[in-house]
Amino acid sequence: MNIKALAAFGAKQALQPFEYNPGPLGSEQVEIAVESCGLCHSDLSMLDNDWGMTTYPFVPGHEIIGRVVALGEHTKRVKIGDRVGLGWFSGSCGECAQCLSGNQNLCLKVEATIIGRHGGFATRVRAQWTWCNPLPEGVDAGKAGPLLCGGITVFNPIVQFGIKPTDSVAVIGIGGLGHMALKFLRAWGCDVTAFTTSDSKREEALRLGAHRTLNSRNADELAKAVGSFDFILNTANADLDWNTYIAALKPKGRLHTVGAVPSPIALGAFPMILGQKSLSGSPLGSPATTDSMLQFSARHGIAPTTETFPMSRVNDALEHLRSGKARYRIVLTNDLA
Amino acid sequence: MNIKALAAFGAKQALQPFEYNPGPLGSEQVEIAVESCGLCHSDLSMLDNDWGMTTYPFVPGHEIIGRVVALGEHTKRVKIGDRVGLGWFSGSCGECAQCLSGNQNLCLKVEATIIGRHGGFATRVRAQWTWCNPLPEGVDAGKAGPLLCGGITVFNPIVQFGIKPTDSVAVIGIGGLGHMALKFLRAWGCDVTAFTTSDSKREEALRLGAHRTLNSRNADELAKAVGSFDFILNTANADLDWNTYIAALKPKGRLHTVGAVPSPIALGAFPMILGQKSLSGSPLGSPATTDSMLQFSARHGIAPTTETFPMSRVNDALEHLRSGKARYRIVLTNDLA
Repeated sequence: MNIKALAAFGAKQALQPFEYNPGPLGSEQVEIAVESCGLCHSDLSMLDNDWGMTTYPFVPGHEIIGRVVALGEHTKRVKIGDRVGLGWFSGSCGECAQCLSGNQNLCLKVEATIIGRHGGFATRVRAQWTWCNPLPEGVDAGKAGPLLCGGITVFNPIVQFGIKPTDSVAVIGIGGLGHMALKFLRAWGCDVTAFTTSDSKREEALRLGAHRTLNSRNADELAKAVGSFDFILNTANADLDWNTYIAALKPKGRLHTVGAVPSPIALGAFPMILGQKSLSGSPLGSPATTDSMLQFSARHGIAPTTETFPMSRVNDALEHLRSGKARYRIVLTNDLA
Repeated sequence: MNIKALAAFGAKQALQPFEYNPGPLGSEQVEIAVESCGLCHSDLSMLDNDWGMTTYPFVPGHEIIGRVVALGEHTKRVKIGDRVGLGWFSGSCGECAQCLSGNQNLCLKVEATIIGRHGGFATRVRAQWTWCNPLPEGVDAGKAGPLLCGGITVFNPIVQFGIKPTDSVAVIGIGGLGHMALKFLRAWGCDVTAFTTSDSKREEALRLGAHRTLNSRNADELAKAVGSFDFILNTANADLDWNTYIAALKPKGRLHTVGAVPSPIALGAFPMILGQKSLSGSPLGSPATTDSMLQFSARHGIAPTTETFPMSRVNDALEHLRSGKARYRIVLTNDLA
């Protein structure tokens, strides 16, 4: 059966209806009937070929919620009818040291849902069973899509680096990723600061979970923040004054980026040495970490703050995202048929 | 009683005899009769005022072995006659969060043995009791001085970042610090690689503990090393091709510098993100970590590889160090009187 999708036929072009034949279902693959799909900045970056690795026709969509409708013969973990989430990753080798250690997200052969294959702006999508995360009771399926990419991207470092409820943490960039980071870190029990670039975002940041905000364009506020944080999470895809953020860390603190910062991050060695500080990055999480996030979200009633568009209006939604007005994540409800 | 010392009276000048009156012994201070003192690159940097914080007359020396000869009224941990080691740090506040957590080396008020006070090229030197590390049985006092600065500098990150005997590790820079790193990491049970800049250092590196060497100027060898290491320890005070070393890390790997690299370290965000990699730095270790190092060294028969000069020939020793010919650490035996 052909899959109906929305595809771009060249960089920066509008999406238009597109059908493709997915061929026989792989033995480890699950087929998912897409109910909804979040819209992520990475969809835009891939659509625009910003990373030079897009092939066209290109079907975006990697924050997928749907029902399992077909199973390959060597699948596990899900059964027909299950509601699952599928994110940026859709396959891994299963046999390398990283896969065997539970770090399937670090597998060198990891497959991405929208790289070299078609994504979730479609009636159906396929993925290796490993990456189909069953949605637990208590997660709002209509809002959950963005957890599978934006959400796990910011939840993963909290787990990977052992952030503790006693830690003082800060988030840079209050957007699609950052707003979820504030929610997670507040529920995690931390003392949470939001770095903002304008005082107008203050109220929003407090509502999302920050205990306070710091205006990163205010030199006085930054000077007072020296030595304050155990963990600073950057979610912005922007070049920042990194050494100022390093100075804002406590001894043993970590500046961590999940934002795809364009220019190299240049840090003086002395502050890193004297304060035993770290810089790091991380991709999306493993299937097990994603399961943990979904359970944590259900227990704490955490959902992305979303705006909804019908999938057929994807071009309007893309324009809304490009304009920077999305608050904070767009979910497309599937009306393709 | 005046202390007889060797001091420089200006940047880059030869050391000459110098006497000073240390005043009354502080209540938390221990006075040590210096038996020997290592000569470290930081002594040269301070002598030359490379860091812009040297005051003259300047008495170098911060890899001190000696006997306790006087105790302030509020001292603990050591008694008269004990043989102790004293390194870069000689005091900390004792009451801040870092001190109370056992991270006295990260105390913001930490005192350095040769900054704003006189060091160990002298008959006697003083330090807070906290920083006087009793020398365990089995440590060769005549060679142990360099453990207190160079040694603990490379041992500390092994402890701080939980390096495991199953890890593949590499060391950049086979000098005063790097040669001890090879010995420690080999005894730690790791798979140990030494990065060298010339094939002529290969045999030495193997003798010091490396299982193999990699010539960092050989592009083919570096290309083969991609994804190889859990931990790369830089001990060189030099600007290097950092992104190549990041590429040489396994997923979750860490590039750590104890070398005071002159220019900012500039790293692309994408490799850090995709492989969940870290960059970090660290100073010398805490008193407890230093004690662990001394016990580990005694148990494994680890000693710095040293050359010995009488302290009165300190200017010859400084010249030998400046020439880059020291193999690998110079110890001055005290003949001042």
